[in-house]
Amino acid sequence: MLKGLSRAGLGEIGNDEQFIELASKYGFQTVDVDAKGVIAHFGGAAQALEFLQQKEVTIGSIGLSVDWRSTDELFLAGLSGLVVDAEAAVALGCTRCCTYVLPSVDMNAAHFMVLATKRLRLCAQILGAFGIRLGLEFVGPHHLRTQWKNPFIWSMEDTLDWIDAIGEPNVGLLFDSYHWYTNGSNVADIEKLRADQIVHVHINDAPDVPIAEVMDGERLFTGEGVIDLAGFLRGLHAINYLGPVAQEILAPAATDSPEELVARSQAGFTKVFKAAGLE
Amino acid sequence: MLKGLSRAGLGEIGNDEQFIELASKYGFQTVDVDAKGVIAHFGGAAQALEFLQQKEVTIGSIGLSVDWRSTDELFLAGLSGLVVDAEAAVALGCTRCCTYVLPSVDMNAAHFMVLATKRLRLCAQILGAFGIRLGLEFVGPHHLRTQWKNPFIWSMEDTLDWIDAIGEPNVGLLFDSYHWYTNGSNVADIEKLRADQIVHVHINDAPDVPIAEVMDGERLFTGEGVIDLAGFLRGLHAINYLGPVAQEILAPAATDSPEELVARSQAGFTKVFKAAGLE
Amino acid sequence: MLKGLSRAGLGEIGNDEQFIELASKYGFQTVDVDAKGVIAHFGGAAQALEFLQQKEVTIGSIGLSVDWRSTDELFLAGLSGLVVDAEAAVALGCTRCCTYVLPSVDMNAAHFMVLATKRLRLCAQILGAFGIRLGLEFVGPHHLRTQWKNPFIWSMEDTLDWIDAIGEPNVGLLFDSYHWYTNGSNVADIEKLRADQIVHVHINDAPDVPIAEVMDGERLFTGEGVIDLAGFLRGLHAINYLGPVAQEILAPAATDSPEELVARSQAGFTKVFKAAGLE
Amino acid sequence: MLKGLSRAGLGEIGNDEQFIELASKYGFQTVDVDAKGVIAHFGGAAQALEFLQQKEVTIGSIGLSVDWRSTDELFLAGLSGLVVDAEAAVALGCTRCCTYVLPSVDMNAAHFMVLATKRLRLCAQILGAFGIRLGLEFVGPHHLRTQWKNPFIWSMEDTLDWIDAIGEPNVGLLFDSYHWYTNGSNVADIEKLRADQIVHVHINDAPDVPIAEVMDGERLFTGEGVIDLAGFLRGLHAINYLGPVAQEILAPAATDSPEELVARSQAGFTKVFKAAGLE
Repeated sequence: MLKGLSRAGLGEIGNDEQFIELASKYGFQTVDVDAKGVIAHFGGAAQALEFLQQKEVTIGSIGLSVDWRSTDELFLAGLSGLVVDAEAAVALGCTRCCTYVLPSVDMNAAHFMVLATKRLRLCAQILGAFGIRLGLEFVGPHHLRTQWKNPFIWSMEDTLDWIDAIGEPNVGLLFDSYHWYTNGSNVADIEKLRADQIVHVHINDAPDVPIAEVMDGERLFTGEGVIDLAGFLRGLHAINYLGPVAQEILAPAATDSPEELVARSQAGFTKVFKAAGLE
Repeated sequence: MLKGLSRAGLGEIGNDEQFIELASKYGFQTVDVDAKGVIAHFGGAAQALEFLQQKEVTIGSIGLSVDWRSTDELFLAGLSGLVVDAEAAVALGCTRCCTYVLPSVDMNAAHFMVLATKRLRLCAQILGAFGIRLGLEFVGPHHLRTQWKNPFIWSMEDTLDWIDAIGEPNVGLLFDSYHWYTNGSNVADIEKLRADQIVHVHINDAPDVPIAEVMDGERLFTGEGVIDLAGFLRGLHAINYLGPVAQEILAPAATDSPEELVARSQAGFTKVFKAAGLE
Repeated sequence: MLKGLSRAGLGEIGNDEQFIELASKYGFQTVDVDAKGVIAHFGGAAQALEFLQQKEVTIGSIGLSVDWRSTDELFLAGLSGLVVDAEAAVALGCTRCCTYVLPSVDMNAAHFMVLATKRLRLCAQILGAFGIRLGLEFVGPHHLRTQWKNPFIWSMEDTLDWIDAIGEPNVGLLFDSYHWYTNGSNVADIEKLRADQIVHVHINDAPDVPIAEVMDGERLFTGEGVIDLAGFLRGLHAINYLGPVAQEILAPAATDSPEELVARSQAGFTKVFKAAGLE
Repeated sequence: MLKGLSRAGLGEIGNDEQFIELASKYGFQTVDVDAKGVIAHFGGAAQALEFLQQKEVTIGSIGLSVDWRSTDELFLAGLSGLVVDAEAAVALGCTRCCTYVLPSVDMNAAHFMVLATKRLRLCAQILGAFGIRLGLEFVGPHHLRTQWKNPFIWSMEDTLDWIDAIGEPNVGLLFDSYHWYTNGSNVADIEKLRADQIVHVHINDAPDVPIAEVMDGERLFTGEGVIDLAGFLRGLHAINYLGPVAQEILAPAATDSPEELVARSQAGFTKVFKAAGLE
């Protein structure tokens, strides 16, 4: 597995160059960024790639920029941007693109599922032509399941069924420790997966409150909470998952400096990877 | 368009031979039956086909026998039967297979949509190999929208979106005058359709009660109620729909004899086709 | 059916505005152009649309701009342009995009079929999201069947099989009278089609030489050769084809003025439509 | 990886029970058989499963029984059998079904590719509903590339492109050492694969003749020829392939007893697995 960082939770970490620099300095192997922005920053894909290679960092995943959650018009308007994103990702060797799925919706849930299936299938088809996989992140916190009018889906099992219904070979899970935890899942649930069903992994920790009260935006740094992250990593290792495990801390702004936060992240990763017997 | 009959509402009309006989006698061109059963009754496809040709009747549509609404186990257990049904339909020249979609469900609606999409897609794929189209009937009566825990879909528009999401070229609507009426739709809504989006048509009438109070199982014979069936037929004619228009009367058992009921059906068809300027 | 024009065979007919002007003046209802270019010429989709509406002309079809015949790199490089083309087509109310299929290839034919299937499927998927259909034109002239190393496909039947294999609901035929003729097909072959299998129609005529010697680039104006174009139109009418029938004259440059050529086209159309009993 | 046997090359090895018995006795973990036949032999799936579990043998793969190479009629006639096969496979815990692809065809190669794509896609869709993967075996021997009129495909790369064009998530390679060898491929070619692209593996050896002269039906027992089977296994191990490696010896009938041949197979497997550092 590859240790990875996203910007979430790291404060004002600066531009992509500064972000990659810090990630590299503290031993992270992947960063989740906008590939197009990285290329723009460095004035070209070749220059960006050279910097990444020098820092021994690759891009773990880009985000799905197209708006697949509202109108057909907005969705279609985003397709040309999706092609540009895919071109940029490929140019930097990135093969993952991810989006999250909220567990409730205001629309009729069945109709929203129909629209989401159609739209994400097309995104997957376009990304697939570029050799990029699409990762769908189920979102577990209980408060979000009733935040909008109608329940949608939030479990690993339902999301795997959905991936089947989408029907494209390059779609899989973005598997996040927080959503695994808030679904009340265990290591055996991970071991039921095949590695190729997972596109990307997020890691972060939860405070010691009842699972039903865990808030989506109050995540803790890796290893600083109560989630069995050693078990989480052991499960992923057991099924031969070899991709990135990227930290994503959705939480109120921290007061430490970005560098302190990245160093703290490194320490957290070291702790849980050691506990998992993986270093 | 072809005038058609299903057994619904015609009482104890007897075996398939008797049903086809009566349909033919009263000027109907298609019957909705189980093709496999017809072949069994006549002791072979050739004999069945000979009788059908002699009576100038074709099979409008078979029903989808596989259970796509409950467990994966039951669904899979029905697939071999589906192949047999398709073989029988093809042997008798039938190119339509239909099922209805209830407007509410007990399961999580989004997850049910996922499962239904996967399962009906496979049915469509199998049927498609045999040159058979799959028609999905949206169901409009308001009381059914809340009969089970969660709302599903019940409109023409949502069903067309769903057909897109299923993504197979041979899937279309089973378009029923009752569900068109209980959706509060009009002739212009029909004229937005292309004929190739319609696999099959059901016709029947509704009592003079507020639309929101129309009950699914209290349908009237064609031309005996308040639905603008002349407009319904004019709309279908305007878009060049050329397939069957089959009567389906879901209602408490009638006391008349089957032959009286078929004769009454013929009179109703004549009335509304004339009103539509179609005979 | 709608009478249509493409630029092919009309000499130096000028910019899109001049082309549309002339088409309109001589009673043509559709033009095949690059929608993006039309919008650019008029300085906006609204202005272009206003001009088209004023001239009572719509856009019959755009061409498929992406290169699906050579390398993956070139294909992928064309995808962002395809999205732009689709956006432009939709903005002008055009719902067709077409490409032709050469009947022989230098590559291994089976492998080329695999690549073409994958690539055209993605094009269809993208176009489909915009409500645009993709028309595939089989190409009949015998000399082209051996022009490159390996035979590919050139018949209506094989192309329909291919469309099935592509598997997207919005793919159909571009049906050209020249290729129908050079395949030795007849009116009964047209009557086997359903209208929804045809995306677009080309019309033009052939010189009086043996079919096996008809050259692709020596086409005649509509009604000036030996193809049974009255039968061709009657067949299309019989199956309720309602879309454009656009002239495409691939031939050595004519010496007449564009306006003379458009007038001559109008006369040819009138002749064959009358012969078909269609005006 | 699991050591596996097929009947090919083992002489008159008897019924499935005797075959499984011998496979088990000589340390093989999987057998390739007709699951339906095994169930029939034991008088039920439960009894068959009990025997398999007692012998510590699982079913590696069933063969694809449907005829996808000739007419639509024959193909459709085989679909009900495919469903029965899939049900039987699932009942015995088998998740693989395989077929081979001849490298030349009498039909137009492009049209055959179209038909094969449509048909194998439907097979994959049906198998996929049962959780079974479909493995396609490319066939490398040079003499077969010209045995029929038109070249088809025979390389790993082309077959992977084809799998993409088929477009179903559960299709992958049946990877056979003989075809890898006769394609002139090396270990690096294996290392380009992902494990999830491989459904099943065949192993067997080739005589010491020029690659272009290797005959399909003159295969040698594992470890008795010149193929770098240690490299072959190392490559598969390097990409984390964990499925069966089943011996398939297409060769003239051997004179030894089946038990001698299975014992010789065991010795050959031991030799090459040891050489690969895998035991």
